[in-house]
Amino acid sequence: MSPLEFFRLQTREEVLALYDRFSPVGVEEVELAEAGGRVLAAPVPAPEDVPGFLRASMDGYAVHAQDTFGASVGAPQYLEIEGEVPMGVAPSRGVGPGETLRVATGAMLPPGADAVVMLEYTAEHPDGTLEVRRAVAPGENVLRPGEDVAQGEVLFPAGRRLRPQEIGLLAALGLSRLVVYKKPRVAIISSGDEIVPLDEKPRPGQVRDANSYLAAAQVAGWGGLPLFVGVIPDDLPALQKTLVQALNAADLILVSGGSSVGARDLTLTAIQDLPDAEVLVHGVALRPGKPTILAALGKTAPKPLMGLPGHPASAAVVMEVLGRPLLSRLAGVTDPAPWGRTVTALLSRNLAGATGREDFVRVRLRHEETTLWADPILGPSGLLSPLVKSDGLVMIPLGVEGRFKGEEVTVQLFGGA
Amino acid sequence: MSPLEFFRLQTREEVLALYDRFSPVGVEEVELAEAGGRVLAAPVPAPEDVPGFLRASMDGYAVHAQDTFGASVGAPQYLEIEGEVPMGVAPSRGVGPGETLRVATGAMLPPGADAVVMLEYTAEHPDGTLEVRRAVAPGENVLRPGEDVAQGEVLFPAGRRLRPQEIGLLAALGLSRLVVYKKPRVAIISSGDEIVPLDEKPRPGQVRDANSYLAAAQVAGWGGLPLFVGVIPDDLPALQKTLVQALNAADLILVSGGSSVGARDLTLTAIQDLPDAEVLVHGVALRPGKPTILAALGKTAPKPLMGLPGHPASAAVVMEVLGRPLLSRLAGVTDPAPWGRTVTALLSRNLAGATGREDFVRVRLRHEETTLWADPILGPSGLLSPLVKSDGLVMIPLGVEGRFKGEEVTVQLFGGA
Repeated sequence: MSPLEFFRLQTREEVLALYDRFSPVGVEEVELAEAGGRVLAAPVPAPEDVPGFLRASMDGYAVHAQDTFGASVGAPQYLEIEGEVPMGVAPSRGVGPGETLRVATGAMLPPGADAVVMLEYTAEHPDGTLEVRRAVAPGENVLRPGEDVAQGEVLFPAGRRLRPQEIGLLAALGLSRLVVYKKPRVAIISSGDEIVPLDEKPRPGQVRDANSYLAAAQVAGWGGLPLFVGVIPDDLPALQKTLVQALNAADLILVSGGSSVGARDLTLTAIQDLPDAEVLVHGVALRPGKPTILAALGKTAPKPLMGLPGHPASAAVVMEVLGRPLLSRLAGVTDPAPWGRTVTALLSRNLAGATGREDFVRVRLRHEETTLWADPILGPSGLLSPLVKSDGLVMIPLGVEGRFKGEEVTVQLFGGA
Repeated sequence: MSPLEFFRLQTREEVLALYDRFSPVGVEEVELAEAGGRVLAAPVPAPEDVPGFLRASMDGYAVHAQDTFGASVGAPQYLEIEGEVPMGVAPSRGVGPGETLRVATGAMLPPGADAVVMLEYTAEHPDGTLEVRRAVAPGENVLRPGEDVAQGEVLFPAGRRLRPQEIGLLAALGLSRLVVYKKPRVAIISSGDEIVPLDEKPRPGQVRDANSYLAAAQVAGWGGLPLFVGVIPDDLPALQKTLVQALNAADLILVSGGSSVGARDLTLTAIQDLPDAEVLVHGVALRPGKPTILAALGKTAPKPLMGLPGHPASAAVVMEVLGRPLLSRLAGVTDPAPWGRTVTALLSRNLAGATGREDFVRVRLRHEETTLWADPILGPSGLLSPLVKSDGLVMIPLGVEGRFKGEEVTVQLFGGA
């Protein structure tokens, strides 16, 4: 009896629900300049107010707003210009009743001033008098201390992936070092007697290791750290030795097994013989992706191992559908998936589903006037070129016979962290 | 007369049309494992067929298809099993009439065989006879040589940004080194007397350099190589010296000018005094972003300089709208913008436009049952927190008074290469 038969196919949801057995990887401190795209490992409270002082947000004149009340083009108010506030320093004097100081955008307001009159509503007279043609309210054209961020406010929760604007705000607060989750290290193993490394010329019957490179590019694009382990023949001791080494070096192990039933059984046997290994999934109700394996390795803080189908195109889809969420889990991401991962399009032809399995069909997107069409790109899963022609995947759910031409479908786009 | 007045506001389209004055940066060779996200600098022809030989795409039996014609469950055909084809080697014998060999997925087909009968439609009898219960057509369950890629076929044009699937296909072809465009080096300068570097404690009237960090994270996320130049005071000789140095070290110079009119004029003067400098744009019909500068530096193969508004939130928007396309140009990208950069949503409140300018309004996206709402996030452009709360931008075109609550709008999402 093949080990395959011990297992029933699990649904995608069932597989995803198993991921909470795995903990995010450890943390490290990084420089802010290197923190783009990284994931915060602890909430960040604001150590101070931003802005730290009352700032002009326009070029003009710092005033006590009350001195401008009633000013208009027809009935201007007049103030005495007492000089200007240089940029980057505290004003050397304040603004008394009927007085004003020139300020540029970003300058600190002098004591006594609570608003800025914009340049365009004023005129300077030769005698040093300012003509004010428009009243301002207190707080107008200024930024209050703490208006952007108040001291003590939690800026970002743990699990937030840092975009450029978060980096900018952290810089404004002087937070030059951050505690983030480490990038999950992902060991990538290709197994199969027919696979040769990239730098070897395949003999008849052999093929080059495409899977390692494809998976590594996915992992790197999603914020992981790919570790190329190499090509292992279909040999139990060799595979086991490699798995043990990978377990020490990595947070996640990917094995793109040989594509034959025998090779898949070998991967499973190799896993089962490891100490404290638990096979959680062997067989997923996905097309492509049925032979996918998920195992937990180690007693405390188990590490995940994912066995991928041997066909590169199938492995790539399983990585998109199951690998990416696993990597996000290990990376500590708690944000919802970013916007822009899916688009809605109209299916350009009928598609039959796969009985008893969720079917992920590759599609290319195409604009035709205002309509966005999803063109299915069919082809054997042994080929890579259909995947290259595709922009994303359309899912036909379990229990649905298919999708019809003209139906609105959600396209899960390739790529993106 | 201020130098500002020499210029009229240019539209976004006019600015974008100027980018073809700038050439993509130089090329370099990289290892395939490092090529994810890089941009091909030359078309890649396939050096060989993929697959390189007739391969089984299913586990089963290699047959001469004609020998199975007419086979069914009720009337099976019988073939002699002459052994099996091991993985990764050329078969040691062929398949003669009435003969078959066991093959696993990925194995090379023996001479004489042109199809594979799947395991599940067969039974092996103890005497070494194979019962075939289903006919196969020639070519069934096999992959032909060159079916994925034919030798000589141009795989990818120059200008293609490499996704994981492209990397996989290049690996299958053994293309271990690729000629790609260098990552554009982007010098990032913050100017302004009020700006202090991140590691300095700002005194009253001073603020930290948020712009450099924000822009650097954007540049890195979009495939460029940010070079932190630092903070330069509002001092003409210092700024000019820095610009000359940056010009030698970088392919693109970003100057986030001081936010005051005086500081902006200083940046313009510094540029105009450089040898062979041409100011192409000073003032763009954008909100935010009006004070944006674009200059070409150098006689032959000029390099672009972009002057950004001083407010971090304004600078970030200008970078999204004008900086990203410029970086793509320098990076050699000719692919259309990837899918998923925009989503369609309904505006949740009325928005007034800016007279005479394209208005880019920050919005947060929010799902409410099946409706996707775009909530405008308003606030002075001197603040960063509204940008942090936002997922993207909604544009109100020139000459449009505004957008109404409930109107369908296109949201340009932040981030993504």
